[in-house]
Amino acid sequence: MTANPTSSVRFDRIDRAQALMREQGVAAIVVMNHDDYRWFFGIDRAQPRAIIPATGTSALIAFTAEEEELRTLLGGPEIMIWGSVGGQINDVVTHLRAIAAEVTAAAPAPPTHLRVAMQQWFETPAFLVDMFRRVNPGVELVSSDPIMDPLRAVKEPAEIATMTAAQQVAGIGMDRARTLLRDGATAHEVATEAIYAMMRAGAQRTSTPIYVNVGRETCMLHGWQSPRPMRTGDLVVIDLTPVVDGYCANLARTFVLGEPDARQRSLLDAYEALIPAVRDAMRPGATVAQLDACAAAVLRERGLAEYHVNGIGHGLGLRFEETPASTIIPPHRNVPLQEGMTVTIGHPILAIPGFGGVRHEDVYRVTPRGGEILVPYPIAPVVAASAPAG
Amino acid sequence: MTANPTSSVRFDRIDRAQALMREQGVAAIVVMNHDDYRWFFGIDRAQPRAIIPATGTSALIAFTAEEEELRTLLGGPEIMIWGSVGGQINDVVTHLRAIAAEVTAAAPAPPTHLRVAMQQWFETPAFLVDMFRRVNPGVELVSSDPIMDPLRAVKEPAEIATMTAAQQVAGIGMDRARTLLRDGATAHEVATEAIYAMMRAGAQRTSTPIYVNVGRETCMLHGWQSPRPMRTGDLVVIDLTPVVDGYCANLARTFVLGEPDARQRSLLDAYEALIPAVRDAMRPGATVAQLDACAAAVLRERGLAEYHVNGIGHGLGLRFEETPASTIIPPHRNVPLQEGMTVTIGHPILAIPGFGGVRHEDVYRVTPRGGEILVPYPIAPVVAASAPAG
Repeated sequence: MTANPTSSVRFDRIDRAQALMREQGVAAIVVMNHDDYRWFFGIDRAQPRAIIPATGTSALIAFTAEEEELRTLLGGPEIMIWGSVGGQINDVVTHLRAIAAEVTAAAPAPPTHLRVAMQQWFETPAFLVDMFRRVNPGVELVSSDPIMDPLRAVKEPAEIATMTAAQQVAGIGMDRARTLLRDGATAHEVATEAIYAMMRAGAQRTSTPIYVNVGRETCMLHGWQSPRPMRTGDLVVIDLTPVVDGYCANLARTFVLGEPDARQRSLLDAYEALIPAVRDAMRPGATVAQLDACAAAVLRERGLAEYHVNGIGHGLGLRFEETPASTIIPPHRNVPLQEGMTVTIGHPILAIPGFGGVRHEDVYRVTPRGGEILVPYPIAPVVAASAPAG
Repeated sequence: MTANPTSSVRFDRIDRAQALMREQGVAAIVVMNHDDYRWFFGIDRAQPRAIIPATGTSALIAFTAEEEELRTLLGGPEIMIWGSVGGQINDVVTHLRAIAAEVTAAAPAPPTHLRVAMQQWFETPAFLVDMFRRVNPGVELVSSDPIMDPLRAVKEPAEIATMTAAQQVAGIGMDRARTLLRDGATAHEVATEAIYAMMRAGAQRTSTPIYVNVGRETCMLHGWQSPRPMRTGDLVVIDLTPVVDGYCANLARTFVLGEPDARQRSLLDAYEALIPAVRDAMRPGATVAQLDACAAAVLRERGLAEYHVNGIGHGLGLRFEETPASTIIPPHRNVPLQEGMTVTIGHPILAIPGFGGVRHEDVYRVTPRGGEILVPYPIAPVVAASAPAG
C-alpha cells in the first residue's frame, strides 16, 4: 500500500498502534468512536467505523454513497462499503475472520481465540458491544485503552496548539457570558449567547450541554441550565466546553451577583487557594490521588474538609474525559501523569449542600515545573447585580 | 409513601411500568438515561440514575450536595446519596440485593436469578453495563425496551404539544438557515446561526450536531459540516434537531443554489413524490418495511431504484431515535405502528454516489388516516445563489 501524500491518514500513528497491538497480542482494533477515528484518519464523521489489524491495511467502513468521497479524502486505507447496518455487521465479521485466519496461519502456536480491542467509553454503546459479541462468539473483546492511552496521552505540539485555540474560544464564550450576568437574567439566555459567541469564534460544537447553574443548584455537579432567573446574591457557575477541530476545551468560572456573603466568600477563597497548590503538584509521576490530597489539605486548613470531593481534574484532548478520568474509572486515581499530558484542575464542585457551590476549571499541560495553564483566564467572581446604566 | 402534590414525579407512569415488570418477571429497572429519567421523574440531570423496583418505592441516586434540592423537587421517591462513583456502585448493588431478598421471600417458587432491566441504547455506555455485570454476578441484565416501549411509544396529548413546539422551533431555525444560503456561505456559519435562532426560540440544545452538507458531501448520511464554502449549483442538506423540554424535533430540507440541473431535479422531484406515498401508508399496523416498500416503488417508477436505501423513518420523542429505529435495530423494521406514535419520514438520503443527495424530513403522528404532519414546513429547494442587493 502506498500512502497518498495528500491523505489525512496518520500512517505513523497506525504503525505505532500496530506495534503495541502485536506486543499485547491484540489482532485488531475496531474503532467506533470519533476521537480515535480522527486521531488515526484525520477526519471525522457521524458514524465512525474502522478496523485496524495488527498487521496490514486498515479498513474504513462506509455507506455506498460515501465511498468516492472517502477514497479521495483518505487515499491509502481500504474501504469496506455497506448499504445497511446488517451488511455492516456482516462485513466486520467477515473481515475479522480473515484477520483471524492470517493470525492463525502466521503464528507458531496459533492462539486459542482472537483478541479484539475496542474503546469502552461513554461513546461506545452497550447494545453495539453486545451485538458485536453475539456475532463474534470466538472473539475476546478487550478495552483498547492499553494501546491507545500510551499513544494519545502525551500531546504533540500541534495538538497543544489546537487545544490552546479551543481554550481561547472558551474564554471568548466566558467573556460574553459574564457581561450578561445581572438580576433577572436566565441561565438559558446566558448559555445561548455563550454558545453563539463560541461558534462564531470557531467552535464546531460543545462537548456537553452548556451548564449555567444558579443559586443552590450550583450544588449539582454539571447540573443543567437552572430554570429560575438569577437574583442578587446568587452564585452562578458557568462551565464551557467548546470543541475546535475535534479537540476539547474546558473552562468553568463561578460568579456572585453583588457582594458575596461570608459563606460564599469562604468557598470562593478556598477554591482560589487550592488551585495553585494542585498546579504545583501537577508534575510527571504525580497521580490524581496525590493532587486530591493537595486540594484536601487546603480545605482542611480552612475548616472545609467535610465538603471535599475527590477528582480534582481529568485528562482531556480529542475526548472530553481521557485518562486519567478518575471520577469515572476509580483506578485512574493512581495513573502517574507524564510530561505533555493535558489535565484540568477544578472539576469538582466545592459545595455546602442546600446552599451552593463553587468551581473554577482550566486546562493545564503537565511539566516538571508543575502544571502550565494553556490559556490564563481571570478568576474575578464578583459581578454587579444590576446592568450598568446606558 | 405519599405523593407530594407539587412533585414532578409521574407516579401513574411508575405504576404502569411496575405492572409490566411484574408481568415480565423483571425485579427492577435501573435508569441511567435522560429520556426514561425525565419520563418518570419530570426532571433531568447530567447523570440520571434511578432504580424502580417491581414493587415499592423508586430510588434516585444522587451526589451528597444534590440531596436537599432533589428532595424538594421530587417529594415522594427515596433518594440514595453517594459521594463517589465507587459509593454509587455499592449503593446500587446493596439496593438490588435488598430487592432480590424481597422477591425471593415473596415468591412461591423463588426465581433462580434476579432479572434487572436497563435501556440498551446509544446513551448507555458499554463500560457501565460491563461494570454493572461484574459487581452483580447473580443478575441477568435485560433490555428495558419490552417494558418502556409499550408505555412510551404512544404519545400523550401533552407530549404531542411539546413535540409540536419543538418542531416549530426547528422551523424557525430552518427559516434562518435558508436566508443565509448564497455563493460563498459556509456550512459552519449556517449551522451557527440556525442553532442561535433555535436556542433563542426556546431550544435547550440539539440532539445531534447540526448537519449542513454541501455539494457531493450531501451523499454522507448525517455528515458533519462541510468545510468548503457553498457555490452556485451546489446541493445543500440541512438537518435540524432542536430539543424543547426534553422532546426532540427533526426537520431536514435540501436546497440548491440557483437552478437545479437535470439530475438534481430528478432527485428532488422523486423525494417530494415519495413523501405523500409513505405518509398515506403510515397507519396503525403498518411497518417501516412496508413504508420502505412505498418509497422504493416511487423510486422504481422514476428509474432511481438503485439508489433506494431502507429506513424511511424512525420513531422519536424524548429520545432522538426511538422504536421503530429500523436503521439501528433491524427487527424494528417489522414493528407495527400504533395510532399516536410519532415517526419521521425522510431519514435516508437519496444519493447518487460521488454526485450528491437529497432528503426532506418531518415528524408525523400515526393516525388511521395516515401520517399527520406535526408542523407543515414548505419544501422549496431552489434559492437564489447570490445575496439579494441591498
